[in-house]
Amino acid sequence: MTQMEDAKKGVITEEMKFIAEREGIKAEELRKNVAKGYTVIFRNLVHDWVKPVAVGRGVRVKINANIGTSRDIVDVEEEIEKAKIAVKYGADTIMDLSTGGDIDAIRKRIMKSVDVPIGTVPIYQAAEEMLIKGKAIIEMSEDDMWNAVEKHFKDGIDYATIHVGVTKEVVEKMKRTKRIVGMVSRGGTFLAAWILHWEKENPFYKDYDYLLELAKEYDVVLSLGDGLRPGGLPDAGDELQMSELYTLGRLVRRAREFGVQTMVEGPGHVPIDQIPMQIKIAKVATDNAPFYVLGPLVTDIFPGYDHIAGAIGGAIAALNGADFLCYVTPAEHLGLPTKEHVRLGVIATKLAAHAVNLTRFEEEYQKDYLMALARGRLDWERQFELAMDKERFLEIRETRPTSTEACSMCGDLCAIKLINNMLKR
Amino acid sequence: MTQMEDAKKGVITEEMKFIAEREGIKAEELRKNVAKGYTVIFRNLVHDWVKPVAVGRGVRVKINANIGTSRDIVDVEEEIEKAKIAVKYGADTIMDLSTGGDIDAIRKRIMKSVDVPIGTVPIYQAAEEMLIKGKAIIEMSEDDMWNAVEKHFKDGIDYATIHVGVTKEVVEKMKRTKRIVGMVSRGGTFLAAWILHWEKENPFYKDYDYLLELAKEYDVVLSLGDGLRPGGLPDAGDELQMSELYTLGRLVRRAREFGVQTMVEGPGHVPIDQIPMQIKIAKVATDNAPFYVLGPLVTDIFPGYDHIAGAIGGAIAALNGADFLCYVTPAEHLGLPTKEHVRLGVIATKLAAHAVNLTRFEEEYQKDYLMALARGRLDWERQFELAMDKERFLEIRETRPTSTEACSMCGDLCAIKLINNMLKR
Repeated sequence: MTQMEDAKKGVITEEMKFIAEREGIKAEELRKNVAKGYTVIFRNLVHDWVKPVAVGRGVRVKINANIGTSRDIVDVEEEIEKAKIAVKYGADTIMDLSTGGDIDAIRKRIMKSVDVPIGTVPIYQAAEEMLIKGKAIIEMSEDDMWNAVEKHFKDGIDYATIHVGVTKEVVEKMKRTKRIVGMVSRGGTFLAAWILHWEKENPFYKDYDYLLELAKEYDVVLSLGDGLRPGGLPDAGDELQMSELYTLGRLVRRAREFGVQTMVEGPGHVPIDQIPMQIKIAKVATDNAPFYVLGPLVTDIFPGYDHIAGAIGGAIAALNGADFLCYVTPAEHLGLPTKEHVRLGVIATKLAAHAVNLTRFEEEYQKDYLMALARGRLDWERQFELAMDKERFLEIRETRPTSTEACSMCGDLCAIKLINNMLKR
Repeated sequence: MTQMEDAKKGVITEEMKFIAEREGIKAEELRKNVAKGYTVIFRNLVHDWVKPVAVGRGVRVKINANIGTSRDIVDVEEEIEKAKIAVKYGADTIMDLSTGGDIDAIRKRIMKSVDVPIGTVPIYQAAEEMLIKGKAIIEMSEDDMWNAVEKHFKDGIDYATIHVGVTKEVVEKMKRTKRIVGMVSRGGTFLAAWILHWEKENPFYKDYDYLLELAKEYDVVLSLGDGLRPGGLPDAGDELQMSELYTLGRLVRRAREFGVQTMVEGPGHVPIDQIPMQIKIAKVATDNAPFYVLGPLVTDIFPGYDHIAGAIGGAIAALNGADFLCYVTPAEHLGLPTKEHVRLGVIATKLAAHAVNLTRFEEEYQKDYLMALARGRLDWERQFELAMDKERFLEIRETRPTSTEACSMCGDLCAIKLINNMLKR
């Protein structure tokens, strides 16, 4: 039984109870949203040690960190450390996007090293295995693709990106459509190339019901990938993106009939004034499926700072209804992130999500309330305790010391110190 | 003659021509907005070498970087380097907030080291000079305060924060009002303490017309300070903040009658969902005076990352009509920023302003368009040229190298590379 099937039958599962407790919400509310498909629960039936996480309506906005080896850089220990760092600084889930080294072994080790839900993009592995064999990616057979998906599901991953909306029709349309940055989704491109070469339909679209059966068997959440997402501001909101979005909306509804949990992935690169529209149309087109955004990035000319461009876009997206933010690191568009890049990406994205969560959850707001209280009292011990990154707090305090009870910005001219003294008299 | 007086008479000044050219707008439009007080031009009549900058309606959102010594840390060379770094990375103006060392000499050196407009908060110096003399800040005489203002104006600073809204009435109200973080404006606090101690009216409020005369003499833009701005999310939008705002609105109108340019300062710490309201009420209360925000910070629990909290708040504020963003550095709430903190603060704030400017100015949008084009062509040379921080671009590329024409994130699995090859066939 999937969480959704249970929910439809009125059953409140252990996972729902766990999540309701953690979020401070009513389990019955959660159940209703899961039944409708407005909220998904990540928890593969064979992933015993995972702490389930919910994404969607009525729960906190969550964040994901992508890690994984690449063809150029394979350092398994580093990736495992990245996973741990990401979780330490607030990642709610991890996606293992490894494409270098022993991918199966790496996935299993990463899964064992943390207790948060794990997502993957199975087709990456299918493609990489072609290259290892000295073949072209388009030489993948349909079986190769399905085998990758099944293997990942069997290994216990909790959600998987499947680019099921990259249909023959939209790929044909792409050939006739002008785009500035053609296609930037790796998985989407593998399928588009395959479709163009063989002149066949996307297997995941053609045999979508088989995909639903597999997902149902393990209760994997299908994350319907946005293969046609914009890769630069000028491509945002174009016909290709929207065509795919409506296809994904149809596939969400079909999955719900099957009792399979789905969410939908979104952009990407979006001008700041278009973000509310992007979220609204996604919610309309997909009947309120949980929406998982990559950024969105609000500018393209600050490479090295895309975690900030993504935090701005992500905060606005979340405020307008996006449910799940994929982090972006400072290395985006430049290279595979380092551990420090992962840390910075997680913190920026967590900050964005928290800024929205505090407007919806009293418990989240309390954290800021207590910090404000500590600041008003110049209680540095308490400020340290409440800081999300205590190491960084100390580092700055210690490198810029003061001899006063305030900080080295104002010293004895500290406004708080002065006014507290005045009002106490 | 002030810019505003000329504008009212239909005169397009040299400064207006210069700015119109730089912004790519019509000088006549700029003149109209300056005449109404919707836009201000920073350019003290004796600050010969400054490149004038406009803030307000119809021009780009600008950003300011605060620098300056403190009582704890006095390193003049470092502050001068900070000013240069800030300008290099995109600060449109610099505020010198020095409160340590030879404040007059430092201000003059900073002014000579850059060609952007300079702002100050003259009362800081008046207060610091009391402490140097071994007196209490409240021992400042009215003359001490006026002398500081006049000295700064005479030295050529282009705008000055004057906390003219910290009236006896609002200070009395503060005594009866519960706040979590009482008062966080330094200048505002000096005045509030002075008012409470002497039971007298704020001299700048009482003799506001004299302030206007001084401002008119040098055409200094008065930046009406928000002494009662919230110092934490729980205090945002409270009665104290709004009382002061409406006082500032009255004073803006009075200044306009005098032909004196004014802008209004705003928060501070604001929950993300309240930012649009905050900007709207400020524009209503002040009849569309240029609005200069400090952040706003959307969360308080990420000390060390307030530049990101401020970039999120600043982007949303700018999108909703804020005209001028004061940067926040990672050292905010912890200590006096280092040069690296200044750099990070400027970049984050510039990114936020640019994200909004590109939706309004074709020339700004073109930068992102060209970057998207370069990315779609995997043209790394061009991406480097278009990057706002070239050093950082190279640093990440070089520490995470690839053997392919793509980057080390995807290598031969690069989506762009694959799809370009496919579509070329």
